[in-house]
Amino acid sequence: MNVDDVFFRKATKEDLDSIVEMLSDDELGKSREKFEHPLPESYYAAFSSIDADPNIELTLACYEEKIIGVLQIIFTPYLTYQGGWRATIEGVRTSSSFRGKGIGRILVQWAITRAKERNCHIVQLTTDKNRKDAIRFYEQLGFKPTHEGFKMHL
Amino acid sequence: MNVDDVFFRKATKEDLDSIVEMLSDDELGKSREKFEHPLPESYYAAFSSIDADPNIELTLACYEEKIIGVLQIIFTPYLTYQGGWRATIEGVRTSSSFRGKGIGRILVQWAITRAKERNCHIVQLTTDKNRKDAIRFYEQLGFKPTHEGFKMHL
Repeated sequence: MNVDDVFFRKATKEDLDSIVEMLSDDELGKSREKFEHPLPESYYAAFSSIDADPNIELTLACYEEKIIGVLQIIFTPYLTYQGGWRATIEGVRTSSSFRGKGIGRILVQWAITRAKERNCHIVQLTTDKNRKDAIRFYEQLGFKPTHEGFKMHL
Repeated sequence: MNVDDVFFRKATKEDLDSIVEMLSDDELGKSREKFEHPLPESYYAAFSSIDADPNIELTLACYEEKIIGVLQIIFTPYLTYQGGWRATIEGVRTSSSFRGKGIGRILVQWAITRAKERNCHIVQLTTDKNRKDAIRFYEQLGFKPTHEGFKMHL
């Protein structure tokens, strides 16, 4: 495959099966997600909320007829930094049969371009400290690990 | 003062001066913010976007007639974790004359309560690794530093 032939588009409800399959086919995702037919209703509910929000974009990388990658970008106005907007990248996944071909890289670069188009001054993300490859990947892309990422499960 | 007398309310445009004063009166904020009269228009623009978004709450801690703390909570639908919602806490600041009285703690605890009310399954935040006190503070509150927090300034 030629990465120049990869294109990006907004996800639709009909893509949910393929997306959840990718989210499940992941070292940490496999125990968190539930890829079954039909999908749990909670995925559809979240998709509807995402789709209705002009500040969230669920984007797919596609090659020919296949969905080969996904990420979610959230654009948020902050008061800090003199009222600057930020883009937060979440849930970056590549289809297992297309890993190692630079799809993750072009997905994230696409997100950086979108962040600039939306006048964001920071692009941010957190990644689990157990994801050693992801940490190297983001560092290579120019992200700086300046922050401690705290989570609390309720 | 008695922390039981602290109450919380939604910020209004008229509070912006006090909020930006707090954001500026901070080790890292002092070089990032611009507290002047009138405030730069960008703060008002960001406030309008925040105020119009039902998934963002800019909340003040108040004592008698004074604004003594602020934080921003963002509620976001994710596809991951079976379509779970998360609450992201940002820009937690306490007025310098009220530091060391536990205001930060009750502000964050308030945010955790709001996250539960909004059916979030995770509360998350990032803090600059240079903020050693903040890191200790969040750990004491039960947050786990499981993630690397990456930023890229555009």
